[in-house]
Amino acid sequence: MHVRVNAAISADGKLSSRRREQIAISGDDDFDRVDRLRAESDAVMVGVGTILADDPSLTIDSADRRENRREKGLAENPARVVADSHIRTPPNATVLDDSAETYLLVSEAAPSDFVAQMEEQDATVIATGENRADLAGAFDELQSHGIERLFVEGGGEIIFSLFEEGLVDRLSVFVGSVVIGGRDAPTLSDGDGFVEDFPQLDLERVERVDSGVVLEYDVPA
Amino acid sequence: MHVRVNAAISADGKLSSRRREQIAISGDDDFDRVDRLRAESDAVMVGVGTILADDPSLTIDSADRRENRREKGLAENPARVVADSHIRTPPNATVLDDSAETYLLVSEAAPSDFVAQMEEQDATVIATGENRADLAGAFDELQSHGIERLFVEGGGEIIFSLFEEGLVDRLSVFVGSVVIGGRDAPTLSDGDGFVEDFPQLDLERVERVDSGVVLEYDVPA
Repeated sequence: MHVRVNAAISADGKLSSRRREQIAISGDDDFDRVDRLRAESDAVMVGVGTILADDPSLTIDSADRRENRREKGLAENPARVVADSHIRTPPNATVLDDSAETYLLVSEAAPSDFVAQMEEQDATVIATGENRADLAGAFDELQSHGIERLFVEGGGEIIFSLFEEGLVDRLSVFVGSVVIGGRDAPTLSDGDGFVEDFPQLDLERVERVDSGVVLEYDVPA
Repeated sequence: MHVRVNAAISADGKLSSRRREQIAISGDDDFDRVDRLRAESDAVMVGVGTILADDPSLTIDSADRRENRREKGLAENPARVVADSHIRTPPNATVLDDSAETYLLVSEAAPSDFVAQMEEQDATVIATGENRADLAGAFDELQSHGIERLFVEGGGEIIFSLFEEGLVDRLSVFVGSVVIGGRDAPTLSDGDGFVEDFPQLDLERVERVDSGVVLEYDVPA
């Protein structure tokens, strides 16, 4: 599986303010870049924190791109994957609507009534790991469902977990020309953080987009 | 006074790990860029957190640049300014040595024995603000000592305070090709953070340096 992570951050590395409200960091050109990356993927993944904060649809905005996918015999929208170890996905989350397939990655401790409720809404629940979803195992299972190109859109907790487990192949970051600040504001990579063996990146491309810049990194294995 | 802020951050916006240990984020070319910026300044400023974490000298590394300053009739090294509202500068801090003038910005609540101890070491103590140094007032006083070009090297708390008070004229950021992670790791701009009226920047220059990139911003008044 090929895993690409993308996020828009402020010049000081924040995904949003300490209130976790969505902030206009990028602009139309970057939205279009992200839409293209979604369209080129088999699935779009977020952590449940992003579902709770933003309730995104994770679908493709451009009608042309959706049409293009149909012509190739693909589903109109890529599948949606929510990393949800602590089963916090609300039953009315937009990602559970019928505009695309949806997978929930939970731990083996997930109670059966939560699983039943999600399956009732046609979501596929993948349970791995004792108390926390085992991402590598879950990705193997996603692959068996035909997902080869996974596009991860955040937030900072899931991005850190993916780096921690060595599962990231590519990272693209839009750095917006704004300061958000805040020691408690979510950043591109949160979690416990590394204290040694910091993942090294290869900066492959630097491109000015909107009023900011996109940094495109390869993540050596 | 012209205030330029500079820092080296990881691709995820961190100044160091949650342990606050120094991490190689940039390289020789960026060190040289920072050395040049120091040499072009009347004073180099850090928050006391940086003193406690790294005990820097804040002096100019290049003998040529020091010589150059002497030829212009300037002190060999720019002055050093430590923002130290809570009087945590240790008496054996390297910034208190005699390689450059040193100013401590404290609040009016700073006890006289601390002030006396610092003055004994030839530091100039500037007391403004009731319980926390009033940076704008302190900068006026620095200016009366001939400091027109102030170069701020971090950390995240003082950088946030400067943005909060609208005192930043220019921001340059080296973004290194490494992930540090950690919700508790210090970032380019910490403090309480903004929740509205986020400072907007103008991205003026993007330059690849070492294995990363330098983003140079103007901060409109």
